[in-house]
Amino acid sequence: MVKQERAARTRQALIRAGAEVFAKEGFAPASLSSISRRAGVSNGALHFHFESKKALAFAVEAEALEAVRQVVRDAQGGDDGPLQALVAATYGLMGRIADDIVVRAGFALCGVPGQGKPPSLRREWQCWVEETLRRAEADGWLAAGISPGDAASAVVAVVVGFEVLGSEDRSWLSEQKVTGFWDLLLPRLTERARPAVGGGSAEQVRGETA
Amino acid sequence: MVKQERAARTRQALIRAGAEVFAKEGFAPASLSSISRRAGVSNGALHFHFESKKALAFAVEAEALEAVRQVVRDAQGGDDGPLQALVAATYGLMGRIADDIVVRAGFALCGVPGQGKPPSLRREWQCWVEETLRRAEADGWLAAGISPGDAASAVVAVVVGFEVLGSEDRSWLSEQKVTGFWDLLLPRLTERARPAVGGGSAEQVRGETA
Repeated sequence: MVKQERAARTRQALIRAGAEVFAKEGFAPASLSSISRRAGVSNGALHFHFESKKALAFAVEAEALEAVRQVVRDAQGGDDGPLQALVAATYGLMGRIADDIVVRAGFALCGVPGQGKPPSLRREWQCWVEETLRRAEADGWLAAGISPGDAASAVVAVVVGFEVLGSEDRSWLSEQKVTGFWDLLLPRLTERARPAVGGGSAEQVRGETA
Repeated sequence: MVKQERAARTRQALIRAGAEVFAKEGFAPASLSSISRRAGVSNGALHFHFESKKALAFAVEAEALEAVRQVVRDAQGGDDGPLQALVAATYGLMGRIADDIVVRAGFALCGVPGQGKPPSLRREWQCWVEETLRRAEADGWLAAGISPGDAASAVVAVVVGFEVLGSEDRSWLSEQKVTGFWDLLLPRLTERARPAVGGGSAEQVRGETA
């Protein structure tokens, strides 16, 4: 039992160290020995848990994917409709990308060319955004003439853009960037009572910029 | 003279081959010998022109930067105001990213971690977008309450997002994506006669979706 716990902790330390090295150096130049050193374990322990660098990268992505799913579940918890859930999920996701190196590295690994097809974070996030905006349209939340597909593309592209730009300049990962985006887009998307802008908290009703 | 021409042509072939390999494989895994083979020249010829892989990557970025500057110059040519120039420049830029492997690779190389600080395409593009939106505000083009900084962030992030997503799925690089974005954003940015949406052509006045 104690042994299993120790193994789980080692695995977790390796995933975290891998995320740190992948995020800093990129996938291809990252060396397994620098990852095991950072995790404070031997190369043998690394190979016991992960048969290759790619297997470790997949584990980083899988953990990031779980975080994204949790963000989406949390955002859907409210009953203020799909647009509110979408706004809350973008705050939640950008917050996780800013604060959690595993989530940040998981997204960065999506963009690595020639790396095979791991569980794609970006694809799953995109599908959820598209589905949520289709639901918003079906439930009468979207203003006349607004295409849910165009809106989904804008939301997906902006989040990817923030994430990629944020790897060089962390100000792109700030809550203010998300608020600035929704202040622009939300009044165009809906004419119904506006969802709260600002981390999904009902207290902080903003978005009335015009 | 003929010799100089031949040297210039070889250099150009190497930049193009480098762009193709960097875009396909990423910077770190790209080998100089696969680049020289693709360019149809010897390794010696590659080293005569570029002392390192990094030097070749800088040349790719420099050429992409020149293309971005040309896009901006072309977009500013009209006299329909700064928002029209901004719309036209996003069409022009996405068109170049879609059609020109050197421009596409130049942008992709911006995101390579730990690669030193080459001339940054993304930074120059961002500065121009910010300046153009400040000018739009000063000239009275922006609707009341619109922050030029928020608008610039959205435009910059969306273009980076399209470019990054487009490396896996080319539909993100299509003119339709750019049109969809401006159809959403433009009516929110301005209440004055709307700039043309659609490649900057004055004939194609769209954007009236609401």
